[in-house]
Amino acid sequence: MADKILSISRRTHATPFTRRVEAAGVKGYTVYNHMLLPTFFDSNEADYWSLCQDVQVWDVSCERQIEVCGPDSERLIQLMTPRDISRAVIGQGLYAPLCDEHGAIINDPILIKFASDHWWISIADSDVDLWARGLAQGYGLEVKIREAKIWPLAVQGPKAETLVSRVFGDEVPGIRFFRSKMLEFCGAEMMVMRSGYSKQGGFEIYLNDPDLAESLWDELFAQGEDLNVRAGGPNLIERIESGLLSYGNDMDSSHNPFECGLDAFIDLDAEIESMSLPALRKLKDSSQHLLVGLVFNEAMSFDDFSVTVDDRIVGDIRSQVWSPRYQKHLAMVMMKRDFLSLNSNVSINAKIGNIADLPFDFNALR
Amino acid sequence: MADKILSISRRTHATPFTRRVEAAGVKGYTVYNHMLLPTFFDSNEADYWSLCQDVQVWDVSCERQIEVCGPDSERLIQLMTPRDISRAVIGQGLYAPLCDEHGAIINDPILIKFASDHWWISIADSDVDLWARGLAQGYGLEVKIREAKIWPLAVQGPKAETLVSRVFGDEVPGIRFFRSKMLEFCGAEMMVMRSGYSKQGGFEIYLNDPDLAESLWDELFAQGEDLNVRAGGPNLIERIESGLLSYGNDMDSSHNPFECGLDAFIDLDAEIESMSLPALRKLKDSSQHLLVGLVFNEAMSFDDFSVTVDDRIVGDIRSQVWSPRYQKHLAMVMMKRDFLSLNSNVSINAKIGNIADLPFDFNALR
Repeated sequence: MADKILSISRRTHATPFTRRVEAAGVKGYTVYNHMLLPTFFDSNEADYWSLCQDVQVWDVSCERQIEVCGPDSERLIQLMTPRDISRAVIGQGLYAPLCDEHGAIINDPILIKFASDHWWISIADSDVDLWARGLAQGYGLEVKIREAKIWPLAVQGPKAETLVSRVFGDEVPGIRFFRSKMLEFCGAEMMVMRSGYSKQGGFEIYLNDPDLAESLWDELFAQGEDLNVRAGGPNLIERIESGLLSYGNDMDSSHNPFECGLDAFIDLDAEIESMSLPALRKLKDSSQHLLVGLVFNEAMSFDDFSVTVDDRIVGDIRSQVWSPRYQKHLAMVMMKRDFLSLNSNVSINAKIGNIADLPFDFNALR
Repeated sequence: MADKILSISRRTHATPFTRRVEAAGVKGYTVYNHMLLPTFFDSNEADYWSLCQDVQVWDVSCERQIEVCGPDSERLIQLMTPRDISRAVIGQGLYAPLCDEHGAIINDPILIKFASDHWWISIADSDVDLWARGLAQGYGLEVKIREAKIWPLAVQGPKAETLVSRVFGDEVPGIRFFRSKMLEFCGAEMMVMRSGYSKQGGFEIYLNDPDLAESLWDELFAQGEDLNVRAGGPNLIERIESGLLSYGNDMDSSHNPFECGLDAFIDLDAEIESMSLPALRKLKDSSQHLLVGLVFNEAMSFDDFSVTVDDRIVGDIRSQVWSPRYQKHLAMVMMKRDFLSLNSNVSINAKIGNIADLPFDFNALR
């Protein structure tokens, strides 16, 4: 398909950073949580190398924060996730699939606890606020649910710690992975977490004052000039090489967490009130699919996303990209489990590929 | 802002019609309910004249149908809407705002009743299925909720009845507005309703077999050649001229239906169990805003969407477009009600505009 224009309207919300993103020469967007998410500035590949070698600033305002406050907050959030949240630490980010009463994945957010009666759900692309509101209303819970006035800005890449330290000070290097500190910028305190949707290292700054957006952006670029700082966004090449899942792409509400390799985030034996646990206990050993990697030694162009063995359809390509670093075509595929034990060669468009575990182990693939 | 590319992925779902849409030369998309919605093929203005003079075929698969089945279906749907649905007729479409317990608008779908235990919610752009699932779970209702395997195709324009009759037969002209019939195409029965997101007249065909999508598209184009049939999509010029609301643009969950002029769809006095009615009864005479029209005699280019009087901000432009037919710049504005009684001249960027009722009355404006 040739490139198409995105028709932008109020419904595809701009962010407090959009003017700077535009000035930085953004070429593509996607729409994520009803908001503009920049996808590339130079090209996917040039952006990839910049991310892996230097440092990038990403407008990820679309990572909306669903704020849940009130005495029943923790109960509501525990109902929504099969991960035991009882030992969450204040200021910690917790990757936690949200699952419904059938065990289906509704979203895979980061949960952030500020107090037992004050949480953020940092969501992937689905209207989790509506689900939470429906549950709260139906169960009669005492909570307030709103989309918080927060616009995250990610700083990602090997030089991210240097850059964020220059702007937010000496406490930055001491922040551990998925932990945060409240740090000051222009007199305002905002949360800075070591996190982000890449495996190149970095931070997410939870901007809480839209009037500071452009100053923050400008300061990062001024302080990062010698670090080759660039504008960027979640990069398809890097995220697939790194095996980072994308809700809506690799899995959706037709899948359960065991099909996505998320077993580690499901506390099947916990004595918690989580609406999906009864279903998940039954699904544990009976789910039919598994998300795996698929590797081709040449660049592929797909007309058909079905993966076959002996003309039987055994899997479905969910995401895929050419890796310039490894010179392989990488895909994430929802495969029938039955097949996985039998064979590791499959074909697509008559080309032979190899099944691989996720995340990809490139030492083994060489 | 210069045009930007839409980065398309599995998450921005293609539809069964996408190959034909692409072959027809689509130039722009938006993302609506996580799905591609074609926005223009030639230009907004050329598409507008084609829609108003001839007939267009629109891929509106993104009008997802949330199917609610089971003994508590009608109860759940009535909980979600303040419109009394008790007298809905089988096969009828019912425009019905969905509102939460605070009276906020969650969506403004068309409800379609097949039986008291079988409904479709034909949704605007928000994940209503999640809200419905949360409510059903919390209230313990006996319902099944799923996104139905339905991909609506709209045929719109003054020649739409002729074209749809050629493809679906003699029963088509007898279908009244927002009523439907089950009609046959290639041996499959599908719902054909007189409806659609324009005021040029037309039908929506609720395709229920994706394998027939391209045959249906091709048949409409083959039978419509002498009618100048073209591919199109919801047209910004036509929908604003016609005063059709767009959820997410003109209003969102920060508004109540009285602010959007939807009073006629709220049955304040009905003895029904609808979760928003208590709040709406209080809001009826106290809502602070009203969505109105705004008319300028010259084309405008906005940097700032604030509407002012004497340097006070009194309104917020939600949608706007140049009307080539009326040679006016038209906007839909969420205005402070206090101001509306005082004056009908406002300014934006130092240009003077006139407040108008919605839908616009172009005879009065001339």
